[in-house]
Amino acid sequence: MGELTLVTFDWVPETPRGYVRDIRVRWALGEAGLPYRVQGTPFDDRAAGHFAHQPFGQVPWLIDGDLSIFESGAILLHLGERSGALMPADLHARSNVVEWLFAGLNSVEAASLPWSIFKFSGDNVQTPGRKHLDAFLAKRLHHMETVLADREWLAGAFSIADILMADVLRLVDRFGGLAEHSACRDYVARATARPSFLKAHADQMAYFAAADRATKVPEAGRS
Amino acid sequence: MGELTLVTFDWVPETPRGYVRDIRVRWALGEAGLPYRVQGTPFDDRAAGHFAHQPFGQVPWLIDGDLSIFESGAILLHLGERSGALMPADLHARSNVVEWLFAGLNSVEAASLPWSIFKFSGDNVQTPGRKHLDAFLAKRLHHMETVLADREWLAGAFSIADILMADVLRLVDRFGGLAEHSACRDYVARATARPSFLKAHADQMAYFAAADRATKVPEAGRS
Repeated sequence: MGELTLVTFDWVPETPRGYVRDIRVRWALGEAGLPYRVQGTPFDDRAAGHFAHQPFGQVPWLIDGDLSIFESGAILLHLGERSGALMPADLHARSNVVEWLFAGLNSVEAASLPWSIFKFSGDNVQTPGRKHLDAFLAKRLHHMETVLADREWLAGAFSIADILMADVLRLVDRFGGLAEHSACRDYVARATARPSFLKAHADQMAYFAAADRATKVPEAGRS
Repeated sequence: MGELTLVTFDWVPETPRGYVRDIRVRWALGEAGLPYRVQGTPFDDRAAGHFAHQPFGQVPWLIDGDLSIFESGAILLHLGERSGALMPADLHARSNVVEWLFAGLNSVEAASLPWSIFKFSGDNVQTPGRKHLDAFLAKRLHHMETVLADREWLAGAFSIADILMADVLRLVDRFGGLAEHSACRDYVARATARPSFLKAHADQMAYFAAADRATKVPEAGRS
């Protein structure tokens, strides 16, 4: 375990700001009280060095000493193993956190991410596939509503699973997708009221705002 | 660590047979040489007991002694920690397996699963959102093609990451989505030629076929 460096894009357009996935890692590092520095990788020109760390040309990745880790889920799991504030060490409690971490990614985000792609596109055409996709998300949110109706956090104490799930549901909420799911909305509100989320969000916004000022190029001039 | 019980549906319709996610767990257990028994949970009537183990009413879940684990990714990670045949113990090698396990779920399946929902629906209407979704998958497959062009397995030796990724790509292949991605196709062929995959597949097919015979109810009579 060594010094921690979080790598994110050196700049992004306005729309994804506040939702770039480095926020998951900033949030976790804040909850764990682990110091780190932030390094930018070009958004406009993604070179071989980028793909060597992140094979899909995405962000974030985390450098921990001589370890470089991509995928926000893998990074959260790694940090969970470093800090008891993010994941308990007890076998049963840990297993519960891990299954909910995967559930956030593969049971909820697998439905919400494509749905948000249609929302981003302003696409409301109800083709047969789209109806199935909307029903897929509705079903997953229905189950999350049941789960969250009687618990504060997913797996006992607050954990990496909540960072992941709250961030996933936050994007659904952005497009009004939680209108009929008050337990999900309350959960997102509870999670995002935490000081470490507020700081992570402010830090991400400030980082990209500083990039605008540094390059003195208005957003419209960027690709 | 105790006796292993894999829980799957007691019956499924023809279409998903061979692709139900218990195959990921059967395959991993086979590679690891771990004995297990299979238990069915009703497909038609999903009771509270089901949701207590799997909050989304899906399968599989794995019972390991007094531990019950849902999410195929979490189950594979758990089995990887039990068996060196599925994941190396060395910190760096393990981290590489874990990031690719998440990549299979969140970078590839997050794009391929919604795409397959449209394919299952026979929906080819090119709305703006659909174009973005197709481009999203194409981009992820393009990167996987580069990765797989010069390696046999994702993270050194064969691992749980390959079980996951090969199963994800196998469903893309089912709908012809790998036509222009020969390295991905070769990878799927290589993975699914392994004796443990062949046995897992045959076992799943046989399990559901036996359910047809046991109930003597033709498929058309089931919901």
